[in-house]
Amino acid sequence: MSHHRSLAIFLITCPDRRGIVASVSTFFFERGFNIVHCQQHTDPLEGRFFMRILIDIGATPYARGQLSEEFEELARAFAMEWSAHFTSDTTRIAVLASKEPHCLFDLLCRAHGEELTGAQVALVISNHPDLEATAAQFKVPFFFCPVESSSRRSQEREITRLLAQHHVQVAVLARYMQILSSEMLDETPLPIINIHHAFLPAFQGAGPYRRAWERGVKMIGATAHYVTAALDEGPIIEQDVERVTHEESAEALQKRGRDIERVVLARAVQAHLEHRVITHANRTIVFSPGI
Amino acid sequence: MSHHRSLAIFLITCPDRRGIVASVSTFFFERGFNIVHCQQHTDPLEGRFFMRILIDIGATPYARGQLSEEFEELARAFAMEWSAHFTSDTTRIAVLASKEPHCLFDLLCRAHGEELTGAQVALVISNHPDLEATAAQFKVPFFFCPVESSSRRSQEREITRLLAQHHVQVAVLARYMQILSSEMLDETPLPIINIHHAFLPAFQGAGPYRRAWERGVKMIGATAHYVTAALDEGPIIEQDVERVTHEESAEALQKRGRDIERVVLARAVQAHLEHRVITHANRTIVFSPGI
Amino acid sequence: MSHHRSLAIFLITCPDRRGIVASVSTFFFERGFNIVHCQQHTDPLEGRFFMRILIDIGATPYARGQLSEEFEELARAFAMEWSAHFTSDTTRIAVLASKEPHCLFDLLCRAHGEELTGAQVALVISNHPDLEATAAQFKVPFFFCPVESSSRRSQEREITRLLAQHHVQVAVLARYMQILSSEMLDETPLPIINIHHAFLPAFQGAGPYRRAWERGVKMIGATAHYVTAALDEGPIIEQDVERVTHEESAEALQKRGRDIERVVLARAVQAHLEHRVITHANRTIVFSPGI
Amino acid sequence: MSHHRSLAIFLITCPDRRGIVASVSTFFFERGFNIVHCQQHTDPLEGRFFMRILIDIGATPYARGQLSEEFEELARAFAMEWSAHFTSDTTRIAVLASKEPHCLFDLLCRAHGEELTGAQVALVISNHPDLEATAAQFKVPFFFCPVESSSRRSQEREITRLLAQHHVQVAVLARYMQILSSEMLDETPLPIINIHHAFLPAFQGAGPYRRAWERGVKMIGATAHYVTAALDEGPIIEQDVERVTHEESAEALQKRGRDIERVVLARAVQAHLEHRVITHANRTIVFSPGI
Repeated sequence: MSHHRSLAIFLITCPDRRGIVASVSTFFFERGFNIVHCQQHTDPLEGRFFMRILIDIGATPYARGQLSEEFEELARAFAMEWSAHFTSDTTRIAVLASKEPHCLFDLLCRAHGEELTGAQVALVISNHPDLEATAAQFKVPFFFCPVESSSRRSQEREITRLLAQHHVQVAVLARYMQILSSEMLDETPLPIINIHHAFLPAFQGAGPYRRAWERGVKMIGATAHYVTAALDEGPIIEQDVERVTHEESAEALQKRGRDIERVVLARAVQAHLEHRVITHANRTIVFSPGI
Repeated sequence: MSHHRSLAIFLITCPDRRGIVASVSTFFFERGFNIVHCQQHTDPLEGRFFMRILIDIGATPYARGQLSEEFEELARAFAMEWSAHFTSDTTRIAVLASKEPHCLFDLLCRAHGEELTGAQVALVISNHPDLEATAAQFKVPFFFCPVESSSRRSQEREITRLLAQHHVQVAVLARYMQILSSEMLDETPLPIINIHHAFLPAFQGAGPYRRAWERGVKMIGATAHYVTAALDEGPIIEQDVERVTHEESAEALQKRGRDIERVVLARAVQAHLEHRVITHANRTIVFSPGI
Repeated sequence: MSHHRSLAIFLITCPDRRGIVASVSTFFFERGFNIVHCQQHTDPLEGRFFMRILIDIGATPYARGQLSEEFEELARAFAMEWSAHFTSDTTRIAVLASKEPHCLFDLLCRAHGEELTGAQVALVISNHPDLEATAAQFKVPFFFCPVESSSRRSQEREITRLLAQHHVQVAVLARYMQILSSEMLDETPLPIINIHHAFLPAFQGAGPYRRAWERGVKMIGATAHYVTAALDEGPIIEQDVERVTHEESAEALQKRGRDIERVVLARAVQAHLEHRVITHANRTIVFSPGI
Repeated sequence: MSHHRSLAIFLITCPDRRGIVASVSTFFFERGFNIVHCQQHTDPLEGRFFMRILIDIGATPYARGQLSEEFEELARAFAMEWSAHFTSDTTRIAVLASKEPHCLFDLLCRAHGEELTGAQVALVISNHPDLEATAAQFKVPFFFCPVESSSRRSQEREITRLLAQHHVQVAVLARYMQILSSEMLDETPLPIINIHHAFLPAFQGAGPYRRAWERGVKMIGATAHYVTAALDEGPIIEQDVERVTHEESAEALQKRGRDIERVVLARAVQAHLEHRVITHANRTIVFSPGI
């Protein structure tokens, strides 16, 4: 997505009915905005409408507040849930990791190379000290939050506190290997993206590569999804797979899987950062990258 | 694409400017039509706008002629090129083949199994008699149009005559293996879809599997494109590839390639039949299948 | 695999130990055979060795019986399970289908186009009369074996009888949609290949496209496996997937899935026909096509 | 590939004839070695045989020199070209980069995370100073070797000198963007692996993403190959592709392409480090990873 222009991105969903596209596009047209990109989706089963619309706001005198206020009027008429995002803003990310470095490294490299659109890794949190040097390499603050079964809730509260303190807007579980309690999810009003090292819903839970090997699958995969209280059952954002053969042991699958995990997680984070994802009924609408 | 409803599909392209989406969506809204699906694309380099819009026309009193007439007024205001298509119509296809049966078979099976949306294979034309029984199996008329270098133009005129006589709307070269002259293309005002057995622009021209083997590529592919006077250089509709290894000879690649050819050609024909393709500047906009 | 030479294919498995490759290759070398292709696999966990070896038998005076007898001596020394196959033989296939034509059509087209190496579709069996014309088109005998819950075992016995009567060597369930009882599997000493319309082990059982849609997966797949008494849990031969989007309904997934089903089933049948598959501990070793 | 055992890897190629497998496997069997993995390939067109064989050398009294000497006798009998490699050795890599960090970052992360089997990045060389901090982050020496058209040969000689001084065994061009002269290639007796940002042989030379966009391809790719004097025409080690749409600009393709470049280059380097590649007649045999 280009950064040369100052854009607003509206994500909209509402019950489907006649006239939504006409009303929304007329709303922006009448105010002199250029629609740079627009994508809709209608779920005919649910009778629900979804829209992502990019507006060039560079050349207009509108303040954000005024635009939002006026749009809210239209939104009410269609019972819309909506949010507006601005490409001039920076999104603050927290990465939670454990011991395996590959996903953390990948996200840090991408952030450093300006591949994560408009985002900044604000901090790294881990239940192990192993990756402290990795974070330090990229000059990102590292917080060691050890966890034992007895201290789980207090550790989670510490994490929630850190996320709030650092004004984090999205948390990424980069092979964090800990299950977040539903209490923590309730207390942490952030989207949380997890990478699961299997092609969900196959091999939910622990040890997916071992189980994939035992089942003798001919492809392995990875799945990035929003975290919900139900383990590995949140809305899927992105998946990918690679072909494997009988020659590869469970350890070889695990090693090979790292490339899938890295890329699938990065694509999901990128889609989230570009405000291309709407969640509804435990499924995602992922609009295409466009431009 | 569902056939339970009677839909009109408008394909639109025009110079990009403010207000197109608002105007088009308002046009249909004001006339009481429900927009079932709508997809746009703006090419920022060319400053050009593209749109595919599906309208439910089942419940309205509008005749096709009236709708088109009224839309033409709007179209003129934006300098639109546009066409309207109706899902209740059947598209008549001609398949041109040579000796290899796999693509012809595949298209006939799909047509028979109602996998080619709203289409009918009206006739098969070949420069060899080998596939007559294949066409007969599916009760499709077969025309043998042999060609020698001295008779090429007269053979092409015979083909053009057959296409016109059978009211063909799209011709598919299913491994036809003959180059159509620019004269024939001028005289045949039909879209013609070809399957090339390589990942264009690699291996244009003859013997692509042999040349792919010689080059030692690790993937082979196929490309479906609209035919233009420049050999293998027309607008690409669809491509796909498969991984290969050093163990596969040129003959093995050719055999393996058949599965790619079949599927890539079928997808391209399907996209064309669903009116999802707009061609511009030798490139295609291929709208997503939707619904 | 080339058919110009007369080849024998030995499939071998035994406990791993030193000297197997040396002994087997020396066995053929000493008798004047040329090893055309040879592939091994050692499962280090199970300590088990697997081998596929292709021998050119065209220029040697050896009768099949003598070769087998002499090899059996070697095999005993290593506690080998082994089988020998000859490319000059034709494999007789039965296809079991229900109402959906696409996989049956695909197999018949491939057999007709000589894409199924050394195989012949000997008969088609169905629990519905719908596909009789399809079989007739390809001049393959069709047997209608209706089934009701009360008559299930007698229908299965009729199928087992037909398979035996037609000297069938492998049965293919081309979207047959019936679960074979363990009694039938016991009575039918044939490998049976099934195509499941999901990426196993995800979505075992009925309605996988509907459930894939509900789960919101971003890729759908198909799995070909040998049938065992445990539903959808037999050894996997081949899998493949395609990327899908939120725009595709469960019906669209089903339609799209046909291309995956066709190709995955055909590849699995082809691997079986080329004697490239060894099953062990509910997993498959699938040797590469070679030559 | 497991590192728990001390293994020797023999790469062998020779004219095809009867008895090679028997002789080689008997050679190792008679000396008490366990064959851990073995893969052959015969090119029937060229009449040439290729073999990769892994031997467990941990439990034998053989010194490297003695084993090589004895094998050389066998090799002479079959006119073999061969090399032996030992998993206990470390391979020293030089990475040449320019300004784009993503491939360099990726290789450094993999080396750091022990994903590059038995390898060490010994130094980074660049014609621009931009990536000095990146190398420093990973504590890898960085050498800035600027180049102007007048000084090209002297810059190349400096690079050749650095490679020799640091005992480099393989050089990797990680988006180096400079063409190496045939003089330099002659003077640098090392395998050099390059990543080209296109699916070769499509889009050889400069600006492949721009040209891919102009041609309107539906997939983009990357190719890792050994460098030869003919630009982008060396033996291909690995390729991969991703599907793209009309919505993606040339810049979007370039951005998307980074993930393909990273993974394709890493896989090729990994295959080289595992001694799985034999080059013959400008093509590669890439043995499968095994174990």
